[in-house]
Amino acid sequence: MILSTLLLAALSSLLPFTTAGPHARLKSPRKWSKKPGLVEILSTIASSNSTFSPAVSAPKPNIFLSLSDDEAASVISFLHNQTELNLTANADAGPWDNAIEVVDLVQPNKTDALAYLDNGGPIPARYAMARISFGATEKPYLQEFMVGPLPISKTSTYESLDWPTTSGSSKIRNYNADDDLLTQWNLDVTASVADIVLDLLNGTATGSEDDDFDIWGIDPLWMEEIDGEQRVIVWNTYWRYPSDEDAVFDGETLLPQGLFFKSDITGRDSSKWRLLGWLYGDIFYSTTEEFRKAWKSPGFLKYELNLPGEWIGSDQTGNPFPADDVAPPVAVQPNGQRFAVDETQKYVEWMDFSFYITFTRDTGLRLFDIKYKGERIIYELGLQEAIANYAGNDPVQSGTSYMDTFYGFGPYAFELVPGYDCPTYSHFLNSTFHAAEISTTHRNNICLFESDPGYLMQRHSSSNYLALTKNIVFTLRSVSTVGNYDYSFDYVFALDGSIETIVRASGYIQSAYYAKNNNYGYQVHDALSGSMHDHVLNWKVDIDVLGTANSFVEHKIIPVNVKYPWANQTRSTMQLERARIENEAHARLSWPQNGGAMFLVENSDKPNKYGEPRGYKIAPSRGGSGMYLTIQDSPNLLKSAGFAKHAVSITKQKDTEVRAAHANNDYDPGHPIIDFDHFFNDENLNQTDIVLWINLGMHHVPHTGDMPNTVFTTAQSAFIISPHNYLLNDASRTTRQMVRIDYNSTGVQLVKEFGGKMASGVVNITALQPDFHAYEGDVAVRKFPYDPLHPFNDTESIV
Amino acid sequence: MILSTLLLAALSSLLPFTTAGPHARLKSPRKWSKKPGLVEILSTIASSNSTFSPAVSAPKPNIFLSLSDDEAASVISFLHNQTELNLTANADAGPWDNAIEVVDLVQPNKTDALAYLDNGGPIPARYAMARISFGATEKPYLQEFMVGPLPISKTSTYESLDWPTTSGSSKIRNYNADDDLLTQWNLDVTASVADIVLDLLNGTATGSEDDDFDIWGIDPLWMEEIDGEQRVIVWNTYWRYPSDEDAVFDGETLLPQGLFFKSDITGRDSSKWRLLGWLYGDIFYSTTEEFRKAWKSPGFLKYELNLPGEWIGSDQTGNPFPADDVAPPVAVQPNGQRFAVDETQKYVEWMDFSFYITFTRDTGLRLFDIKYKGERIIYELGLQEAIANYAGNDPVQSGTSYMDTFYGFGPYAFELVPGYDCPTYSHFLNSTFHAAEISTTHRNNICLFESDPGYLMQRHSSSNYLALTKNIVFTLRSVSTVGNYDYSFDYVFALDGSIETIVRASGYIQSAYYAKNNNYGYQVHDALSGSMHDHVLNWKVDIDVLGTANSFVEHKIIPVNVKYPWANQTRSTMQLERARIENEAHARLSWPQNGGAMFLVENSDKPNKYGEPRGYKIAPSRGGSGMYLTIQDSPNLLKSAGFAKHAVSITKQKDTEVRAAHANNDYDPGHPIIDFDHFFNDENLNQTDIVLWINLGMHHVPHTGDMPNTVFTTAQSAFIISPHNYLLNDASRTTRQMVRIDYNSTGVQLVKEFGGKMASGVVNITALQPDFHAYEGDVAVRKFPYDPLHPFNDTESIV
Repeated sequence: MILSTLLLAALSSLLPFTTAGPHARLKSPRKWSKKPGLVEILSTIASSNSTFSPAVSAPKPNIFLSLSDDEAASVISFLHNQTELNLTANADAGPWDNAIEVVDLVQPNKTDALAYLDNGGPIPARYAMARISFGATEKPYLQEFMVGPLPISKTSTYESLDWPTTSGSSKIRNYNADDDLLTQWNLDVTASVADIVLDLLNGTATGSEDDDFDIWGIDPLWMEEIDGEQRVIVWNTYWRYPSDEDAVFDGETLLPQGLFFKSDITGRDSSKWRLLGWLYGDIFYSTTEEFRKAWKSPGFLKYELNLPGEWIGSDQTGNPFPADDVAPPVAVQPNGQRFAVDETQKYVEWMDFSFYITFTRDTGLRLFDIKYKGERIIYELGLQEAIANYAGNDPVQSGTSYMDTFYGFGPYAFELVPGYDCPTYSHFLNSTFHAAEISTTHRNNICLFESDPGYLMQRHSSSNYLALTKNIVFTLRSVSTVGNYDYSFDYVFALDGSIETIVRASGYIQSAYYAKNNNYGYQVHDALSGSMHDHVLNWKVDIDVLGTANSFVEHKIIPVNVKYPWANQTRSTMQLERARIENEAHARLSWPQNGGAMFLVENSDKPNKYGEPRGYKIAPSRGGSGMYLTIQDSPNLLKSAGFAKHAVSITKQKDTEVRAAHANNDYDPGHPIIDFDHFFNDENLNQTDIVLWINLGMHHVPHTGDMPNTVFTTAQSAFIISPHNYLLNDASRTTRQMVRIDYNSTGVQLVKEFGGKMASGVVNITALQPDFHAYEGDVAVRKFPYDPLHPFNDTESIV
Repeated sequence: MILSTLLLAALSSLLPFTTAGPHARLKSPRKWSKKPGLVEILSTIASSNSTFSPAVSAPKPNIFLSLSDDEAASVISFLHNQTELNLTANADAGPWDNAIEVVDLVQPNKTDALAYLDNGGPIPARYAMARISFGATEKPYLQEFMVGPLPISKTSTYESLDWPTTSGSSKIRNYNADDDLLTQWNLDVTASVADIVLDLLNGTATGSEDDDFDIWGIDPLWMEEIDGEQRVIVWNTYWRYPSDEDAVFDGETLLPQGLFFKSDITGRDSSKWRLLGWLYGDIFYSTTEEFRKAWKSPGFLKYELNLPGEWIGSDQTGNPFPADDVAPPVAVQPNGQRFAVDETQKYVEWMDFSFYITFTRDTGLRLFDIKYKGERIIYELGLQEAIANYAGNDPVQSGTSYMDTFYGFGPYAFELVPGYDCPTYSHFLNSTFHAAEISTTHRNNICLFESDPGYLMQRHSSSNYLALTKNIVFTLRSVSTVGNYDYSFDYVFALDGSIETIVRASGYIQSAYYAKNNNYGYQVHDALSGSMHDHVLNWKVDIDVLGTANSFVEHKIIPVNVKYPWANQTRSTMQLERARIENEAHARLSWPQNGGAMFLVENSDKPNKYGEPRGYKIAPSRGGSGMYLTIQDSPNLLKSAGFAKHAVSITKQKDTEVRAAHANNDYDPGHPIIDFDHFFNDENLNQTDIVLWINLGMHHVPHTGDMPNTVFTTAQSAFIISPHNYLLNDASRTTRQMVRIDYNSTGVQLVKEFGGKMASGVVNITALQPDFHAYEGDVAVRKFPYDPLHPFNDTESIV
């Protein structure tokens, strides 16, 4: 993706680009803390009868696997040979060139995939997606192509990747292709009021190294009709750089300065661009002259400065607790890993679960073909899009509605830190994405680990006995830092057959200047408002219960009055009402008030032996229920937020309806490539292949507790799917990790264990301490301009 | 509490009475796994600069502390000296005697307590509550008395404890005082249809040791008008005892047999009691003759038997996972305890939190005077009542609405198992309650522990650095097994200043016979229906934010259309609307749809330096939001369920409105001692001392996954209170458990730690294995009839 100057200005200060020394070749994922001789573990595994091996080969090759470096290289090379595309090497390309931005896998059609996975069909042909920016035109645009089959051969072709779109075309206009011009425009505008800026904000923005301010603004851009013409509008504002002493801290989004200007940047000739006005202290000045006149007037109201300082730092502060220099409890894995990973095929087995992993530039980690006890439960589980929709009394906050796949979750899913991000004993995996004609590998950016969440799965005591079952869960985690926010994604598998999807947010809020902003959030510092916003993150959950012929049913708990044969009076009681969502026309749902209904996906034709259809229940599990946008008709998001307007939506599965959103929708949200609302065509949903689109998130009104960073504890949201009349009993009865203690008045009579060894051995905790100096930074690619001074490690040049 | 025959029948089979060998004196709580020489921990604590000591003395004596054994004994002795009470020693008392059931502390008035705690006032006089059953009358009743001041002296008196009631009197009629008669009545009724019972249910109930069936039914009893008179009605049914091979398992509630009979048991002369009819297969027969005639008729429909078998057992079953005989990860505390406990005063300090604990017969564990950074946040936090409200096509399920404080959470809060219920390194406390004139101590029935919940508090990464903060939480846990269900209660304190209250349920469901019951739940076994029910558990949360002058505000996130000075068109956006709940008349709330509002308690007169009132936010945190009763006008609960009809209620604090419910309401729910609805008097709630009453729970429609036991993972509910504009920044910045890693393109430049040691030392995991044979059973008192063959350990005879 070629970033416009505007976006680059924002990103260069906001997005983390982590680098480290070069390596000749990609290393295999680091096994943390294998310091032979220091970790003493007694030979308990050998003494057990376990035949378990943590190595496994995927039963079939992973057809969802990200493109290999070689595949990406061959696709890029193939495209450069197509002269009609007129491509320039990305490293050399300017705004007026055509260049490849992203290469990724075209996800195989489910139809083909199931034929292959289940019915001995052929392995689906592999195709690449190539996202190309066409700059060599007065009307720059982006377009995606499908290239293949792979490997590239004489029969390989390319064509516009239009079939997964709702607009009919993967083309989208780029109204902001000229980053260099916009940067200069902003500096020129600022220069024209340098005296005012110095007076009001006490700083300068001239383009030099010692600038005080960074200038950036709304995302996405607006289209406004002026004099009967559609114009491209941007509102920008001033953000102060953190001061020298606090420079390490990424707190620029806490430093809005409260001065805004509006520009018409229509077209590629910046000499025709126009300044449309200034805003300061909630007063709009339609010309610089008007603004200057007001500023010079007596009584011009100047607001307080929002200055950097220690308060933007996240280091320890305040009186530490006396007990806190002692190390807290820590989890260990004394007897070895209990899950199996095929690192090549990105295939994982834990207990009765298995699944494939993939990783994309747009949405990061994704799971496919999740099986439970040999049956597919979820065909596809993955993030679709993350909206952060702001409001405020100023145009920049009011105009900001991030759609984060535009930036991508893949590029910013960095290396994780053992002992903090994940337990020290985690199994780490690498991930690769291909952007700006560079294949970039994040080392150790996915962790897999078992853990005990601190409460039991099952317990019961009586006068005779006590039965207790451990609740051991298996977590797959990645974290993407998209600018100011760190999104942590967990997929948690449990012994009861449930799968929980959790998102948590930490990092810096994007805040607002305080002046007259109190209807939009709390004042959180001297001249700062918390800037209220909605986070809505959408997941595709393609559940398949015993095949693809599924139905979505609501089982409602309803109050009723019933006259029973055994009662004299009518009784006020409740019943279970089973209702079916028959059609896409009624398939956009809120979570029920008071939890008064269960949402289920069942295979109505596959009842269990008691006649109850086997199914899975879907429910919110953390952070209250929700989440959908407060603003249902955002003038920023326009037709690009259809997926975010309800808590849960259900569609009939179609190979052409792959994603709820498109990473390029942000370029022109009024004319999106994928408009989720178009998925709803009144199609029948009875016993057909259905897909759920579930939103997580929160209404975030930052308060002082978000200073300096929002904390994960209060910013989390999750949904869980769990077996519902699916098996004939509680699935966790299969585990050995339980104990039964029988007793009577003379004491314990019997301790019954079930072959699950208790943790044993001697563990050298000191040797498990993570070595933070071993953090290698991460492999991130500054996509434009390409900076040859940053030879990103683990990067293989393709072109 | 003297249990009626009816209830005793239910309890004797359902409630666990755990016994073990006698001990001379109460031992101090066991420190788990102190096996000297086996646990090798390097001397890291000594080498640190920590001045922390895990021993502490409470700053003031705990005025909420449960009665001591001596206090209880002196109160009982005092009452026995009051001849007008005509008391019989509980051990010798029959239905026609007056006997003391429970002795407990009368919670001090908040007014007096605050004077003492905050303003150097006198220590509040201690008073005991004595709950006495008056059986020596044609109209038996229970009444509570306030006895004191303590210690008992010449000035001590007793009086009816009426002021904390809404009925004006602590007296309540007992319509079912004659357990012995009802047991015999049930057997007589059964004997009259022994041939039918044998034919339909294939078993007998004669009162002998080898009976197949246990007979019990609705709770509470019904009052029905028959021929213009109020009659006491009970519906009973047959429950099969687990078979010999499965006898250890407490699965009787999975074995309803589908035959029901209705009795009029008005009055104390059972010769005047009447059988009012039979129900089988959803057909009502108003006399035994009618039932017999039908049974003998050709075509009488016999339903399938619901028989015991392996399926009611909770042991491991099915093919175990290959990896599962390896021990899973486990948490250790290698460097010592980081919180302090005054075991005598039941006072706890963890980081910036401190609180007092108490324990009552009715509601178990309770917390008082929770302070954070030296300021009281919660004066009182504790369970009030737990309703389990069933529905079904049969009168027993339809008529069952347990109010569990009737049974009590204290008596059934048994010893916890290290390594399962709580980490092996937990700090355990004992608890004592006084019932049936016996002081009973549960050993190790409260655990306190720190843990890492598996995700961070804070993280942020940028191009320059990575900052990570651990999320260490402190948990106080107890578990009460009230009959078939095990309720686990957690109070979780976090470094961000939040406190989470969690309830989870496991154990056996109470189920229904399957015949024609499909509108009320799922069929979950051959002849079994899951019997849908609502769990509603109410907590009193007496929040005090910077004193008692508080207000409850709703901060709503609302969609609005705004015409801004800087915009040409009206924009669709959102705003924060601050609304105050002004009066008790509007103080009964549901959690907002889509999380669209925040519930806050603030001190409006104590804004922070930015003008935002300092407050705490209250929000649902697990298991979706809710929870209130589906059936708002239950004919079983009548006037006793006021607290359960809304998610959150707010009242003005009054010393007379101590509890939302009364343990004796169950005796006559139409005339409860405490009717929560009476707390609402249109009183003003602005800047006054307010109390929140918050419900947790779930609508539980058991499915096959609840067989044999419901699992905690999908049966949990929680609310969290967290600082909201309360401090000037994120409170977790105070912890040392964070790291900052600075890097650039040449690698890590700086690892900044903050004095928090990393876990270190060598831990012998084998030595930490819990010794399940050391489980002592628990100290439970069979209150009636008193069984001299069970010399409950740690019990001190009082009378």
